[in-house]
Order: sequence, then structure tokens, then C-alpha cells
Amino acid sequence: MKNAIVGQSGGPTAAINATLAGVIVGALNSKEIGTLYGAVHGIDGLLKEEIINLNEIFEDRDNIELLKVTPSSYLGSCRYKLKEEQVDDVFRVFEKYNIGYFFYIGGNDSMDTVSKLSAKAEEYGVKVIGVPKTIDNDLYATDHCPGFGSAAKYIATSVMEVTRDCTCYDLDSVTIIEIMGRNAGWLTAASALARCNGNTTPDLIYLPEKPFSVEKFIEDVKGKIAEKHSIVVAISEGIRDEEGNYIAEQTASFKNDSFGHGQLGGAGKTLESIVKNTLKCKARSIEVNLLQRCAAHLLSKTDIDLSVEIGNEAVKCATAGKSCIMMAYKHMGYEPFATEIVPVDINGIANAENKVPDEYINAEGNDITDEFIRYALPLIQGEIIVPMKNGLPVQLIRKED
Amino acid sequence: MKNAIVGQSGGPTAAINATLAGVIVGALNSKEIGTLYGAVHGIDGLLKEEIINLNEIFEDRDNIELLKVTPSSYLGSCRYKLKEEQVDDVFRVFEKYNIGYFFYIGGNDSMDTVSKLSAKAEEYGVKVIGVPKTIDNDLYATDHCPGFGSAAKYIATSVMEVTRDCTCYDLDSVTIIEIMGRNAGWLTAASALARCNGNTTPDLIYLPEKPFSVEKFIEDVKGKIAEKHSIVVAISEGIRDEEGNYIAEQTASFKNDSFGHGQLGGAGKTLESIVKNTLKCKARSIEVNLLQRCAAHLLSKTDIDLSVEIGNEAVKCATAGKSCIMMAYKHMGYEPFATEIVPVDINGIANAENKVPDEYINAEGNDITDEFIRYALPLIQGEIIVPMKNGLPVQLIRKED
Repeated sequence: MKNAIVGQSGGPTAAINATLAGVIVGALNSKEIGTLYGAVHGIDGLLKEEIINLNEIFEDRDNIELLKVTPSSYLGSCRYKLKEEQVDDVFRVFEKYNIGYFFYIGGNDSMDTVSKLSAKAEEYGVKVIGVPKTIDNDLYATDHCPGFGSAAKYIATSVMEVTRDCTCYDLDSVTIIEIMGRNAGWLTAASALARCNGNTTPDLIYLPEKPFSVEKFIEDVKGKIAEKHSIVVAISEGIRDEEGNYIAEQTASFKNDSFGHGQLGGAGKTLESIVKNTLKCKARSIEVNLLQRCAAHLLSKTDIDLSVEIGNEAVKCATAGKSCIMMAYKHMGYEPFATEIVPVDINGIANAENKVPDEYINAEGNDITDEFIRYALPLIQGEIIVPMKNGLPVQLIRKED
Repeated sequence: MKNAIVGQSGGPTAAINATLAGVIVGALNSKEIGTLYGAVHGIDGLLKEEIINLNEIFEDRDNIELLKVTPSSYLGSCRYKLKEEQVDDVFRVFEKYNIGYFFYIGGNDSMDTVSKLSAKAEEYGVKVIGVPKTIDNDLYATDHCPGFGSAAKYIATSVMEVTRDCTCYDLDSVTIIEIMGRNAGWLTAASALARCNGNTTPDLIYLPEKPFSVEKFIEDVKGKIAEKHSIVVAISEGIRDEEGNYIAEQTASFKNDSFGHGQLGGAGKTLESIVKNTLKCKARSIEVNLLQRCAAHLLSKTDIDLSVEIGNEAVKCATAGKSCIMMAYKHMGYEPFATEIVPVDINGIANAENKVPDEYINAEGNDITDEFIRYALPLIQGEIIVPMKNGLPVQLIRKED
């Protein structure tokens, strides 16, 4: 009987541990899998043999429930670009631990790792499976991504709350909320869900999918202020002008991470200062920052349930003989909302980015359409009651932390 | 029979509407009070006769329950320094509406308004009562302030969640969380509550009550990184050096609000850049920003219950003939936690600031003591189930918004 190993990689989400929980439950229940190991710090830690026995930790099934509501990567994460010449090293570690099944939970960059390993998976007799996660919702070949729904719920709720705060004074004011999303504006679009319960903001929404014009932005803001004094604007961190220059670049330091992606921050501050200088009114910018991807105190039950399920299905696919695949959600209908979990070919996923399609963005490029609401609203439904102690959430924390 | 009027003022909190709900319930139940009016946008709106009838809106008692869980000031707020020569104008508006009772919910600056009105309250035959609110917890003569407990709960939870996110990589990193509090470090101190359930951060905590040395900070950070790689540091927006210069001033624009207080922001960014330059490790700063004072999706039940009660007690005191007072919490014991609501003389409150006392701060000035935990922990206990629709909170929104 073969063992299995699971790793987590890339930027954390509030649901990536729910998927890990799904893999753990699947492996513990599987007659084909011996021991389930965890690779600490993803493929980077795996190469260093930072490996722990998950059967022992999760013998106590209460830990599985806590894992589901603990944000970020329980196993630790990495941002590590696997080199072609390291592929055999990975399989040598697998051989040492008698691994027959490898599950890697991550985003685009992690699927690049899974794709590289897939090329030699059959040769080494290991089933290699990618399981998606990303708040950015930009993975190709899946209807949506685990983690997106919870982040979307947190963002829409925070927009509603910040709106109550920002509109309470009798003066013209512009509040700019900067939301994560380098190239894909899914999360920024999700701010529009804040309008579902009678709240009227965001008044304007700008995604990185459309070129951003500062002049047009100022005109848009002027028009909205004339209507209602206090307005709230949602922008993506990744908005760029016609020439492709980041708006954030004007003030923020701009560096590349190890995958060559620019690290952003500052589009909100830049626009805040432009509004102050040109419109001479109160302006404020709020960077939602890490909280949008780790706010486990406000999870979407739909997201968490589907995140657990996709981990569980990954194990079923692997033990049924499937390999070199990524698990994906297939959309099956809106009313009622229905989704199926299916395996898709891993190749070609890593470098394709799923951006917000044109039909979800309005013609002016400063708002989203009702079609987007129809798409995203089902993903934020339901709440998870998080276990509390001392008035605070209880988390499952790995000992080495 | 006389009517009553209530207003909200100053920076919003997640509990200021709970106190308004307490006043409304008290007034609706009182046989001494005719109509309860609301002053829109505080004393500023009152002078402009922006007055609404609250009996009509809250005839539907469901609205009271929604009000309790809606953040910020339902009535709108102001930051308006009442001039001595406007005091008679206020009472003339009161006469027009046959007002016998005035309730003003706010912080230090609002108590300044209450104090000014108190000087002529007897002459005009109006009972004038201040009701505290402030996340800053810096009001004098009360054990704690409505709104502080909920903000403290949100901050401690967010520190726990951000910690899971920031410590998942295998590298040295410093995450700086910047928390509100210009001169009083109560909320920054509350970050320490994040340690109650097995989490070990914040690793360092700096309050504005103690002079901040950048050199000492770098030494502290170095020491902690040597122990555990990834660390989380909580700082107050208002930290200052020995000479009283704000650390934030080094990068942030610095302006005065209409009360002459400096508007801060940027201490986190300043220190982030100092850490990057001197320690050459990953550094990130997070400004919790407005979310810390309006996160009604994570309320402390203790805070909300006590916030409702103090509003209710204010009405009872007023109709029993008391005036020129602020309602306050009197500490009655820790085990079990007990508090009594008492009236205190309004005079002298406005300009006194209740700072974090020495016994709550450690000798090195980079952490808090167990005495603080004993003080603050009872205030974050219990949760409120917020009504949800469409996967999002339901808020009570004033029509004019």
C-alpha cells in the first residue's frame, strides 16, 4: 500500500485549510492510502524533507473541524519556482516515503509545479493532483476558486460597514477602498455585492481588466459627489493606464517577487492624493490588505463546504487512478446554484489567467453588471459558526510555528 | 409633557447605535417623555434644525434590533466645536420642539458640547446628559467606554488571523500592525488579547504612552526575529519619540482637524521602511484603518449589551431629574466581571484624557502586563448573531443617506 503527501503553496486564503481538511478526511477514509504526510512549506520544504505525519495529528477528529476554520496554510507555504532539474529530486523524496499520491493545493504558480511533476509522474508511478485555491479567482478551467467566496463575503461586508462610517458626516467625501487583484478584478468586482441589502455603494468600481484614466476617474467622482456628497469607490490594486503603467507606481515602491510578478500597493493612496488636490474635498483610502484573505471569522459556508469537498474529491480521483490533473468546479446552474467537481488536464492551466469577462463589466468601465452579481452571489451564501473561547476564535496552530 | 432629543457626534463606533437604541427604548417606555426626536449630524444639524421623529421610525420594534447591529452613527455625526455664543441658539431650538431632555452620545469633544450646554441647562429647564462612546477608551471618569470592547475584539481576532497569514513562509519577516489611538494606547494594548488562545503574537507592542525610540525598536525586532523568524508587531498610530515628534510625521502628511488634533497615519509605513533598510528582511505594514471601528459583523456581546444599557439608564436618570452629567461605568469586580452604571459630573471630563496607566505597560515599554489582560478580557466576551440576508449583514440605513 502506498502513502500520500499533501502540500500547500502560494498566498494563503481563509479556505485553503478547508481543502486540506478535505484531503485529510479523504485519505484517512481511504483503504488505498497508508499514511498521509504533510510537506511543510510546500515543495520547498518537501525538497528539504520537512515532512510531518498527518495521521497522528488528525487522529483527533476535533482537529479537523478546527482546521476548517483556521485561516492561512496550516502546513506552511512557499513561493518557490521548481526548476526542471529538481523534478527528479522531488520524486526521490517521494520514493523514500513510499509516496503514491501527491496533492498540491495552490494557485497558478503551484499548478506550474504540478505540471512539471506531471511530466514524470507516470515514470515514477505517482499520481499527481493539483487542487485550486486563490482569493484572486483567476485560475483557468474552473468556474470559481476555493477561497474566493469567503474573501468576497468579507470584502462586501466591509464595504457596507465602511460606508456607514464614511457617509455619516454632512460633507463631500471620497473613500477609496483598494482591493487585492493584480491582473484579475474578481475581488474588486465582489465589492458590488455590498449593494444587495439596500446599501448603495460602491458608487464606482474599477477593475484591472480595463485601462484606467485618471481624468475619467476624476470626472466620474465629480458626477457622483454632485448626486450624493459622500461616495465610496472600489479599485483594484492592479489598475493601469492605457500604456499599462500601474497607477500604484506613482507613489509606491515596486518590486518583483520570485515569480517575476510586480508587488503592488498604493493605488488607493495615489488616487486619494489626486482627489484631494483636484477636488479639494475630504478623501481617504483604505487598503483592505491581508485581512481580505485571512478573515476566518467571516467565512462563506458555501465556499468552505465546496473547499472541503474538492479536497476530498481529489483523493477519490487519485485512488481511482487519475493523475496529472487539477480538480475544478463545473458550473451546473444558477437557480438553484449547482456545481460539480471534475478533473481537468493540468497542462496549460498554470500560465492562463482567468480574468473578469467583458459581459461582467459595464460599458463605461466604472462598474460591474448584474450578470456578475448572478455569478458571485451564490458563492458568499451561508455562515460558519467558528468555535470561540475567551471571546476569540480557536485556531489550529502547527507546533513548529 | 416634554419631548426629548438625542444626537450622535464624533468618530463612529460599532456600538454607538446600540447606545442610541438604549435611549430610544428608554424614551419609548417612559411616561415622562412625549416624542423622541433625533438630531441629524449632531449639534451641527441641530442648529440647522435637521430633526427627525424617532417615535415614528422605531414604532416598528424590529428596527431597534437592526439598529443595535448597524455600525456608525445612524443619525449622522459631526465634528463641530460649539461656540459659547451658540449655546442660546441650541436652547431656542429646544424650546421650539418643547424639549425637556437632551442626550448627546459621543467622546471627549462631544462632552465639551454637553458641558457648555450644562452651564445654561437649569436656566432653560432642560436636562442635559452626555453618554460616552469611543473606541479609544480614553474618556475620563468611566471604567471603560462603549465601543471599545467590540473594537478590541475585532483587533485581537484580526491579529490572530494576520499572524497565521504572515508566519506561513519559512523566512524572516516583520509584520507591523498599525492601530488607532492618538494619545491613548488602549486599542493597541488590546492586540495582546490575541494571545489568549495559544497564538503567541504580537511579539512586541508599542503604545503612545511611552516615548518610542527607533533604535530600541530595531534592537527589539532583531532579538525577536532571532528567536522565531516571523514576528508581528502592534503599534499605535500615535507613537512619538522622546521629543514628542510623531513617528508617522516622517512620511505621512500631517494636518489638524477642527478640534486641533493632528490627523495621523503612516507610523506603520515609516517603520516598515526602516526595518527593510536596516534589517534587510521582508517587512509589511497593515493599517487596520476604519474597519476597527465599524466591524459590526464581529461585535462583543458584553460591549453591545452594556452600550444599550447605558443609553437606557441615561433616560432613567434624566426623567428622575438628573442633569449636567455623563453616564459612566463603575467597576464592581473582576470575578465575576461586574459593572454599575452611574452618573458623574460632566465638568472636567471633556479635557481630561484617560491614558493607559503605567501598571498596564511592561518595564521595557514594548509590551503590556497581565493586569491589562485582566481589565480588558471581560469586555470582549460573547458574540452577537447579526441578521444576514443574501449572505451579508442587514443594516438599518437612514433614508436621507
